[in-house]
Formats: sequence, C-alpha cells, structure tokens
Amino acid sequence: MRDAYHEDLDSLTDKLVEMTRLVRSAISRATTALLDSDLQLAESVISRDAEVNGIFEDVETTIFDLMARQQPVAVDLRMVITALRMGTDLERMGDLAVHVAKVARLRHPESAIPAEARSTIVEMGQIAERLVTKAGSCIASRDVDAALELDQDDDAMDRLHRRLFRTILAKDWAHGVEPAIDITLIGRYYERYADHAVRVASAVVYMVTGSRPA
Amino acid sequence: MRDAYHEDLDSLTDKLVEMTRLVRSAISRATTALLDSDLQLAESVISRDAEVNGIFEDVETTIFDLMARQQPVAVDLRMVITALRMGTDLERMGDLAVHVAKVARLRHPESAIPAEARSTIVEMGQIAERLVTKAGSCIASRDVDAALELDQDDDAMDRLHRRLFRTILAKDWAHGVEPAIDITLIGRYYERYADHAVRVASAVVYMVTGSRPA
Repeated sequence: MRDAYHEDLDSLTDKLVEMTRLVRSAISRATTALLDSDLQLAESVISRDAEVNGIFEDVETTIFDLMARQQPVAVDLRMVITALRMGTDLERMGDLAVHVAKVARLRHPESAIPAEARSTIVEMGQIAERLVTKAGSCIASRDVDAALELDQDDDAMDRLHRRLFRTILAKDWAHGVEPAIDITLIGRYYERYADHAVRVASAVVYMVTGSRPA
Repeated sequence: MRDAYHEDLDSLTDKLVEMTRLVRSAISRATTALLDSDLQLAESVISRDAEVNGIFEDVETTIFDLMARQQPVAVDLRMVITALRMGTDLERMGDLAVHVAKVARLRHPESAIPAEARSTIVEMGQIAERLVTKAGSCIASRDVDAALELDQDDDAMDRLHRRLFRTILAKDWAHGVEPAIDITLIGRYYERYADHAVRVASAVVYMVTGSRPA
C-alpha cells in the first residue's frame, strides 16, 4: 500500500495529466469554433476554462501541503517544484485556447479565417493537440526520450507560423488589415501554446534527470 | 547576525529585485531602439538578456538548495514558492523586451512605428517601466497595499492597447498590412509585459498574506 505522502505525489501527476486533457480539448474546440464560426463551441471553451484553473489551484494547494508537511528530497523534490512550473504552463495554455475562441466569438457569424489561411490553421491546431497529448504522456510515463522529441513538432509549428505570415503579406492578400491582425494574434496564440507544451516536456526531463535539456 | 538560512532568503529577494532592474532597463532600451531605429541599442537588449536568465538560474538553484537543506514554513515557505513564480514572470518579461528589440532590428534602418502610433508606444513603454519598478519595490518592501495598486497602471496599459488597435484599423491608415502586423505584435508584447508585472505584484500579496488578491 502507498502511504499518504506517495499518494499525494501520485495525485499531483494525475492532476497535471488531467490538465493536459482539458487544454487539449480546449484548443481542439477553439480551432473548430474558429474554422466553423461556431459560437456555441467558442462559448464552451471560454466558460470551461474555469475547470483548468480549478485543477491548477488544487495542484498549488497539494504542493504547498506537501512542502509544509513532508520534506521531499531528490527526485520527489524536483517533482514537486516542477509540478508548479508545469501547472503554470498548462494553465496558460488554457488561456491561449480561450483567446483563440474569443476571436471566433468576436467575428461570428463571419469567419476570422479567410480561405487561403484555413489549411495552415488546421495544421497548427493539429500540432498543438499533438504536442499537448505527448506532454501528457511524458508526465504520466516520465519518459525522457519522448519528452525530447517534442522539439520536432515545435519546429513544425514555427514553420506553419512563418507560412501564416507569408499568407497575410502576399501581394494578392485581398482582405485588408483587420483579418491580418486577427491572424497575427491567432498565429501567436498557437505558437505560444506550443512553446508552453515544450516547456512542460522540458520540465519532465529536469524532473527525471536533474538537468535541463540543451 | 543573520544565519545562513535567512541570508539565503534575503539573497533571493535581492536577486528578484535585481531582475526587476534589468528587465526595466531592457524594456526602456527596447522602446527607445524601436522609436529611434537604433540598431546598437536593440542588439544590446538582445545580448544582455542572458544576464536576466543567469540570475533566474541562480534563483532556481537557491530555491532548490533552500528546499533540500532547510524546511521553510509559513511565510518563508510561501516566499520560496512565490520566488519561483516571480522569477519565471521576470524572466519572461526579459524575453518580451527582446521581442520588441527584434522588431526594431528587423525593420532597421526603417522605423517599425509610423508617426500616428508613436505617442501610444511611448506611453506603453512608460507604463511598462512604471509597473516593473513598482513590482520591484513591492518585492523589496513586501508592501501589500502598493502591490494592489498595480492594477490601475495595468488598466491604463489595456486602454493604450485598445488605442493602438484603433490607430491601425482607422480608415486613414495608409501603411498597409506589414506595419499593422508589427504593431499588433508589439502591442501584445507590452500588454503581456504588464500582465507579468501584475502577476509579480500579486505574488507579493500571496507571499505576505497567504491569500490571493481578488
């Protein structure tokens, strides 16, 4: 049987994994809301972010209790400290999904995404989902090799982000300034979402090995 | 005489205050680089960000040592945990100043900021400096009332951010899409910089009182 201390540590892992599930669902729904101009879906992303924030508060409370009542050392101490960092990143990823959903809501019933940018946004959404799903697996499995692989998906996100800029800066861009601004911000939200997922995976590497990925 | 434990805690405060000084200087120089198209100044912001990152690594090491060797409780434990959060926010503020400087560098010898947006950028730079200076004072003094006042400056930043969007969306905007994209991103960097400064101040409130500001 596990003692209360190790149960607390396990519950910390479970909560972080649950946060990855929720923020994956959030960016998935936000992307669809954006592409389909689906107001109801956008609203669901915005209202359900409170769940993510609630779990993060649980994480913080658990960490504080663990620190105050126990004296975690070595890998457990790193686990507790990095859990705080991972929770912060995941909470932010939820916010970024909300930002995407808010652009969808603002432009509804119009679409914020002109035809020539749609496929890039679809791909950015898919990579965002892949990154956070992998980050969740890394937290659960403490798999360092898998954690180091996230960089490749992040490179793909950066390439898509540059493609998005080329689209709005193309000579034949016919939609003017406002959609260009929307797309600039949306591109930034996906890119930041991906960066935070990579940071979560890096935190797993640090937790397990005690040293940072290069 | 202070014992080693309290000296470590004090040094943590000193390092965080030093981070606020460096990232204040960084956003100040980045703003000037942007407005004056000063390439050398932009480069200095970019290269000197390593100092901020170095101090943050010191902060993390100090926190880890403190946790591993001592058992901080109550306000000291909150100090150590929130120091990690404040350090993360301050490190990010350094990155955001670098992002502003990189736009200046990208557009040099042209200016990224057309005349009609300059006064708003000047004000955003000033509020960013004011916010981080106040955050630094709050860390040093642990002054909760002062920490709660940062929200007002942040509201002013949000108003300037909206004004910036009105400028680039105005009917007489004659600069096309590319400067609008630059300004959209720059506006976002200042707004995020301000948000992180507010988070630092909120962390001071939590550290001192044990409860979060509403």
